[in-house]
Amino acid sequence: MRGVVLHAPGDVRVEHRDEPRIVHPTDAVIRLSAACVCGSDLWPYRGIERVAGPAPMGHEYVGVVEEVGRAVATVRPGQFVVGSFFASDNTCAICQAGYQSSCVRRQPIGAIGSQAEFLRVPLADGTLVATPDVPDADLVPGLLAASDVLGTGWFGALAAQAGPGKTVAVVGDGAVGLLAVLAARQCGAERIIAMSGHAPRQKLALGFGATDIVTTRGDEGVAEIRDLTDGLGAHSVIEAVGTQESMLQAIHSTRPGGHVGFVGVTHGVALDGMALFFSHVHLHGGPAPVRQYLPELIDLIWRREIDPGSVFDLELPLDEAAEGYRAMDERRAIKVLLRP
Amino acid sequence: MRGVVLHAPGDVRVEHRDEPRIVHPTDAVIRLSAACVCGSDLWPYRGIERVAGPAPMGHEYVGVVEEVGRAVATVRPGQFVVGSFFASDNTCAICQAGYQSSCVRRQPIGAIGSQAEFLRVPLADGTLVATPDVPDADLVPGLLAASDVLGTGWFGALAAQAGPGKTVAVVGDGAVGLLAVLAARQCGAERIIAMSGHAPRQKLALGFGATDIVTTRGDEGVAEIRDLTDGLGAHSVIEAVGTQESMLQAIHSTRPGGHVGFVGVTHGVALDGMALFFSHVHLHGGPAPVRQYLPELIDLIWRREIDPGSVFDLELPLDEAAEGYRAMDERRAIKVLLRP
Repeated sequence: MRGVVLHAPGDVRVEHRDEPRIVHPTDAVIRLSAACVCGSDLWPYRGIERVAGPAPMGHEYVGVVEEVGRAVATVRPGQFVVGSFFASDNTCAICQAGYQSSCVRRQPIGAIGSQAEFLRVPLADGTLVATPDVPDADLVPGLLAASDVLGTGWFGALAAQAGPGKTVAVVGDGAVGLLAVLAARQCGAERIIAMSGHAPRQKLALGFGATDIVTTRGDEGVAEIRDLTDGLGAHSVIEAVGTQESMLQAIHSTRPGGHVGFVGVTHGVALDGMALFFSHVHLHGGPAPVRQYLPELIDLIWRREIDPGSVFDLELPLDEAAEGYRAMDERRAIKVLLRP
Repeated sequence: MRGVVLHAPGDVRVEHRDEPRIVHPTDAVIRLSAACVCGSDLWPYRGIERVAGPAPMGHEYVGVVEEVGRAVATVRPGQFVVGSFFASDNTCAICQAGYQSSCVRRQPIGAIGSQAEFLRVPLADGTLVATPDVPDADLVPGLLAASDVLGTGWFGALAAQAGPGKTVAVVGDGAVGLLAVLAARQCGAERIIAMSGHAPRQKLALGFGATDIVTTRGDEGVAEIRDLTDGLGAHSVIEAVGTQESMLQAIHSTRPGGHVGFVGVTHGVALDGMALFFSHVHLHGGPAPVRQYLPELIDLIWRREIDPGSVFDLELPLDEAAEGYRAMDERRAIKVLLRP
């Protein structure tokens, strides 16, 4: 089959990879309907995260089940499924507490690579959720978003305790940040401040439910958030970038007693203990337990109550994945959908 | 009046200080019944926190109201009162959300100095809580503990979400750590693991409700906590020291999705963002909003349901404060009560 492989920073190729097959009885193999490039794929692409030899890429996926192992009970061939970027058993104590992305048996899909024609999904029963039927074509991008960026924005909003009466600020205008706006709106937040200096992203944020736009960043952005919140800071801040600057921007934009949900994969971040102590914020984040939210997210998308698929502003055949990476790296595209 | 002044690291003196008087109409002046030395007083005493010139010391206090400003409505001369270590108006949005120690008008009592005969308390209505009557002598140490170490342990337990069905670990066997054990017990925690290598402190911890003792620390202590919790880590961990080692010990002892309540004043702590991200813990802490808890804590002490005063294992006249500091610095005493 054809699949995306990263050979070195900036060197993405679509090449022949062995077709996956059932290895463990709990596996499923799916034929991908769509895959995509994630903001987190840019870390190794940019050389900020080290790559040891050629690495298959991609961890977001939707598709049709081709084959299941003999121990798989909840999905069957022919079903359209959405999965999360960490395979999980969904039965251990950590999964049961709602943290499937820290499942004691978790396996990163990114190490298997979903930017391909087929994907082996471990722990299929605990990882995949079938849609009610084969979806209309226009629903596929939204379902694909649920696999990571929507689920991650959702976790960010919940970790930040977005809800009625709250003012929520979102740091980061990538797909996760934009969908965190959508999630905060679904949580019933009163006011949602999107921080973005880019007109097309501001427009999407407003469409997803943002009530205010702040175009500045860093200390200047913090000052603007404070100006908008009686000098106190927002109740809830969602951090969807992962840099030192964005983490501090998030923490400093939050009022004492408020909540920071950080879901941007952190790189080079060191938090000063004393500053955190006196900030009085709640800090929670990490890899989103997408599996927990999939049934609810699929339902919202299926009933067309939300349209997270609109974050995909560029669609390419899988063979042109390299152009997809370039477009995201250069911020020409918010999120690139790949068609195998 | 006589009062404690720190001149330089290790140089604590009891000397003449001006008797306080009402400065603002919202002030009260109280005659101290008891004061004490805090673990956080040891940071400047040890020279880890810089002292700029002679500094009055102490921020924990109970006493009898001598005089109130004309705007004070809720306490009156003759009443016995307990106060918190940050004066707060108890009316701003931050106070109303339960974070009085980040009140927009907060003033640190430590800058005024409660290790003395008299103390001016700013924002008296928002800071002081009167007891039902003048307390019996044996209740005074417990009420004094409520002023900081009990309230701080309480906040630690709440920030760590200690509660029914939870396994709670406590890092630190100072007065705050020991009273965090008591707080976790009051919260209904199922299992409480005190981390202490000192027999007298272990005994106090068991008396306060600890079910298990772990004597090791650092990575070894983390491994023991994991052994006691099916390899997962505790649900709730209270950090009551404030060093890099203790913070990492706390975070690493917590299961994914669990809660770390950190209440040790942090010094020289830097948290790696990536490690925090993948730890999946909730992190919350800071200066305890003691004022929020005072009515409940006073009630529990008054009804003799809890006896936090037993953390005081050395009592000295105020004039011997220097010996009190030495005893705590050398860990000969857990907590020193000073009688003005």
